Amino acid sequence: MSQHFEELLGRLSNWGRWGPDDELGALNHITPAIRAAAAGLVRRGETFSLCVPFTGGQGPQSGAGGRVNPLHFMTATGCDPDTRVQLGGDAGYTDDFIGLSVQGGTQWDALCHIFYDGKMYNGFPATDVTARGAARNGIDKVHAELVSRGVLLDIAATKGVECLEPGYPITTADLLAAEEAHGVAVGEGDVVIVRTGQMATTNGFTDWSRFRGREPGLHYETAEFLDERRVAAVAADNTMVEATGHLDGYYVPFHMLALVNLGIHLGEFWYLEDLARDCAEDGVHEFLLVAQALPITGGTGSPLNPLAIK
Amino acid sequence: MSQHFEELLGRLSNWGRWGPDDELGALNHITPAIRAAAAGLVRRGETFSLCVPFTGGQGPQSGAGGRVNPLHFMTATGCDPDTRVQLGGDAGYTDDFIGLSVQGGTQWDALCHIFYDGKMYNGFPATDVTARGAARNGIDKVHAELVSRGVLLDIAATKGVECLEPGYPITTADLLAAEEAHGVAVGEGDVVIVRTGQMATTNGFTDWSRFRGREPGLHYETAEFLDERRVAAVAADNTMVEATGHLDGYYVPFHMLALVNLGIHLGEFWYLEDLARDCAEDGVHEFLLVAQALPITGGTGSPLNPLAIK
Amino acid sequence: MSQHFEELLGRLSNWGRWGPDDELGALNHITPAIRAAAAGLVRRGETFSLCVPFTGGQGPQSGAGGRVNPLHFMTATGCDPDTRVQLGGDAGYTDDFIGLSVQGGTQWDALCHIFYDGKMYNGFPATDVTARGAARNGIDKVHAELVSRGVLLDIAATKGVECLEPGYPITTADLLAAEEAHGVAVGEGDVVIVRTGQMATTNGFTDWSRFRGREPGLHYETAEFLDERRVAAVAADNTMVEATGHLDGYYVPFHMLALVNLGIHLGEFWYLEDLARDCAEDGVHEFLLVAQALPITGGTGSPLNPLAIK
Amino acid sequence: MSQHFEELLGRLSNWGRWGPDDELGALNHITPAIRAAAAGLVRRGETFSLCVPFTGGQGPQSGAGGRVNPLHFMTATGCDPDTRVQLGGDAGYTDDFIGLSVQGGTQWDALCHIFYDGKMYNGFPATDVTARGAARNGIDKVHAELVSRGVLLDIAATKGVECLEPGYPITTADLLAAEEAHGVAVGEGDVVIVRTGQMATTNGFTDWSRFRGREPGLHYETAEFLDERRVAAVAADNTMVEATGHLDGYYVPFHMLALVNLGIHLGEFWYLEDLARDCAEDGVHEFLLVAQALPITGGTGSPLNPLAIK
Repeated sequence: MSQHFEELLGRLSNWGRWGPDDELGALNHITPAIRAAAAGLVRRGETFSLCVPFTGGQGPQSGAGGRVNPLHFMTATGCDPDTRVQLGGDAGYTDDFIGLSVQGGTQWDALCHIFYDGKMYNGFPATDVTARGAARNGIDKVHAELVSRGVLLDIAATKGVECLEPGYPITTADLLAAEEAHGVAVGEGDVVIVRTGQMATTNGFTDWSRFRGREPGLHYETAEFLDERRVAAVAADNTMVEATGHLDGYYVPFHMLALVNLGIHLGEFWYLEDLARDCAEDGVHEFLLVAQALPITGGTGSPLNPLAIK
Repeated sequence: MSQHFEELLGRLSNWGRWGPDDELGALNHITPAIRAAAAGLVRRGETFSLCVPFTGGQGPQSGAGGRVNPLHFMTATGCDPDTRVQLGGDAGYTDDFIGLSVQGGTQWDALCHIFYDGKMYNGFPATDVTARGAARNGIDKVHAELVSRGVLLDIAATKGVECLEPGYPITTADLLAAEEAHGVAVGEGDVVIVRTGQMATTNGFTDWSRFRGREPGLHYETAEFLDERRVAAVAADNTMVEATGHLDGYYVPFHMLALVNLGIHLGEFWYLEDLARDCAEDGVHEFLLVAQALPITGGTGSPLNPLAIK
Repeated sequence: MSQHFEELLGRLSNWGRWGPDDELGALNHITPAIRAAAAGLVRRGETFSLCVPFTGGQGPQSGAGGRVNPLHFMTATGCDPDTRVQLGGDAGYTDDFIGLSVQGGTQWDALCHIFYDGKMYNGFPATDVTARGAARNGIDKVHAELVSRGVLLDIAATKGVECLEPGYPITTADLLAAEEAHGVAVGEGDVVIVRTGQMATTNGFTDWSRFRGREPGLHYETAEFLDERRVAAVAADNTMVEATGHLDGYYVPFHMLALVNLGIHLGEFWYLEDLARDCAEDGVHEFLLVAQALPITGGTGSPLNPLAIK
Repeated sequence: MSQHFEELLGRLSNWGRWGPDDELGALNHITPAIRAAAAGLVRRGETFSLCVPFTGGQGPQSGAGGRVNPLHFMTATGCDPDTRVQLGGDAGYTDDFIGLSVQGGTQWDALCHIFYDGKMYNGFPATDVTARGAARNGIDKVHAELVSRGVLLDIAATKGVECLEPGYPITTADLLAAEEAHGVAVGEGDVVIVRTGQMATTNGFTDWSRFRGREPGLHYETAEFLDERRVAAVAADNTMVEATGHLDGYYVPFHMLALVNLGIHLGEFWYLEDLARDCAEDGVHEFLLVAQALPITGGTGSPLNPLAIK
């Protein structure tokens, strides 16, 4: 297995494909024409938020790696006698502050988030990411790009389960089966959204136990499929997009292939339940996806609220 | 003048219009059909980010009211010997944390952000906003709504100046003149985006001095125009949408009318320079606007990266 | 039982004892002469830190009430190529930021931390504590006071156990027995330090499970003893000083008596293992205690590193 | 001048003096006997807090290097209806969170704070300080050491000025003159506290303009004097202890000699006004100094509230 992985690691690569200074990676596959066509998919004008709420003190982070769930602090409330004094006309204001791990909830991995052999996507040295942030491949480099056709591949539904088994690695065959079941074909510039069913188990975003064990997700081999189809980005309803522990000795083999080699942004902790229900009902698994990141300068990722518009 | 204001304050109101429990306010004006029509405005597939970068330690906040510019902390870098140990295959990761005033950069004011006489939009008591967050009218209540037609009214360009004078209050007549100059008419469900030119003065987001004195912005009287046209939301390239100090004794008269009485979300610190240039070139001042907030539970606002798609 | 508590609640009080504006509470018992005498207790010149380390991501906080363990962020490291550029002579610097719940580790409860019937110590209204901080009874009001004789009452050792049973309420009889066993008498202006043994169970500050269930600590009745002895402050090696759940219907009966009524500062999460060993060895349970808080303006408490000097 | 500095840089060193693993540096000069003698200096039992208040949003930090003034957030107040529900007996609590640059107010520089030629005190590599903190020379390594005799050298008073001139470098001759004026001699294990008068200019901690220009402070040559006298640590009422810009091409020459070569902890932003007044009155410039840091694991420094006890 490791031999297969090493072979792919040597063969699949977009480094240099869009020039030596490129920091967009596979987002280059999205052309204005593709975006315009994606807007043409909007029929009903309905929107679906693919975001887990950013709730103070709650969320999927377990503290591992020093990450925390969002901290939400009120700096002015509507209860305090002293908040209304300054605005005239007996008016007052409320105000607050939020602190969060950039990758602490629904988010994108920037292309600087993972490196190996000392190199990030397009060969930039890992040392470009210092305590001051990422000089290269930061999430700020893609502030207006993440708009395209979104395609939902509902693997759990295709397999007829509420949620895939812990650690189940989704294969290319699984993706092809979902395409056939949904009557949709992943193509150039698409953002592929993979549903494992993990988010169906949180009991209203309060129980994250399934996210702390082994999770289902993509098998590393799917990187080849995504490359052949010229996919722009990939997202899923789990912690890492890829399956936990599916290749001995490698913690993030899919990230190494997809994010580092191919420059494919990865979306994690996406909430897909409402969208999946709607797609199952109307049989349409494609839509306009607007999933812009916050332009956090030098950020390794960004919280976001992805919208699917049908 | 104050008499006029008090008269408007008594007359303009959407409280109860969409039921006693409504927390969407004027966003109710956006129907699916309006959204679908807005998507139909996309021709070229070009995107414009209307966001000021969230840069650690930099931004428009002066410290007033305890607000700070974004804090960006790296918790794992590509320089440290100890970051790559855990991922196998000589792979490593980078990670970070961001803390920011919810209203500290490009943002929406939630309907809980301002109150007067102890009441927020739709009559909810200000005391619903405690140290634990806003139980009513929080930004989390509009997680999928902020998609509609955007209309840019470039007041600075219409008046032939780079930036309006400090403290200049934009009148309804000014808005009508811009409509005529641009050949566009603000209508039901629109997000109206007002350009004062303030953001043209920041020298690449490094000089915020114009934002610390009196700023140009909307006159409170425009609330009546926005109400008549059934506008869904309003944004501008300044600190408060409204002009600083344009009514003696009232610090936020426009907020009191628009946000509290009418339930109109207000977008502040929006970056409009690239979009304004494009609109001037092609003469088209309408577009699909996707300006979803982060669903911060109980938040008084949200940072966001609004996208105009033409 | 509740009748006894209510009787004490009505009888024990220092409100007004030191004037209507007093914010020091029982710290008024510490006179300069008492402090000078306490310094006279120093014989060997040995110091004992009574503090749990403030370790990023680790500590006793479980997330309850929104509290978090310390967050420690490095803003400049010794690994980054870009940190050394500015200081000349090939010199560089490192820098960092810490965020913590004010009461998140070894700390003092300020006199504003608890209130009942809408009132804090000395009758100040609870509404003096707003989103902007405590105008009254904040920890900043005692910036130079917390120096006095410290007396260790090692209840666990006196009872011959490593750690008291979960929920065990330490009675006045227990305190008297410890006094006798140690050959020490608690007196005016003392800081009484009570050892339950809880901190002996953390396995080097990594296992906090004992702190998440019912904890041993003071019985509310001891407030009367502490008042009679004119004690200045009380600290312990547990979460709340008092025993968890020892009076039906009241979560913090000891706090109500000691902190609110008597104005006694309470120290929590103190590390007493090294000091207790030394006291057992030399038989001396009194020492100079220097336990100054950080003057956090309007703070409800403060992290600190209490020192016992023998 | 630079030649003199380079000569000192080559000659003065405590590396290896206390073994290859030593992380205490000059604090090794403080023996238990010295501590016990220092306690014997306490006569009146008066305490002096040498700390600038940690006030949310206020303080000496200008944002340079990403540092911020303290952020103070209330997470439970006495005004909110929902804070009192859980404690029984109509009791409620207040709670808060503080975030601060570890070196953002009154503080110690840890021995890991500065390095040159890739090395910290005692030759440890700078790369021991990663995004996860300082593995060597962190402030947590001196949790119980910072108690000794303190000696105030009031240079401003000796020279008869309210505050030394901007950029004035205090020479060894100045220190000797102060010793003679005060009738005190700096000796082994002392913490030397140097008053420039900077803190007399803040108008109650609200005006920090003098701290943003060139500041008076120690000349690098004084490192030799401090070494000869076997001083344990040095503190001052300015930003860097040393004078700003007193040696061309070197931003922190005194730090390089004192902190890196000699392992002398440096205390910055200390408030000396009350203490200086008292010392001038009673003519006694020595006292017990208790200046323990918070044990922040891997921290480059620590906020603290140093106490002088006379």
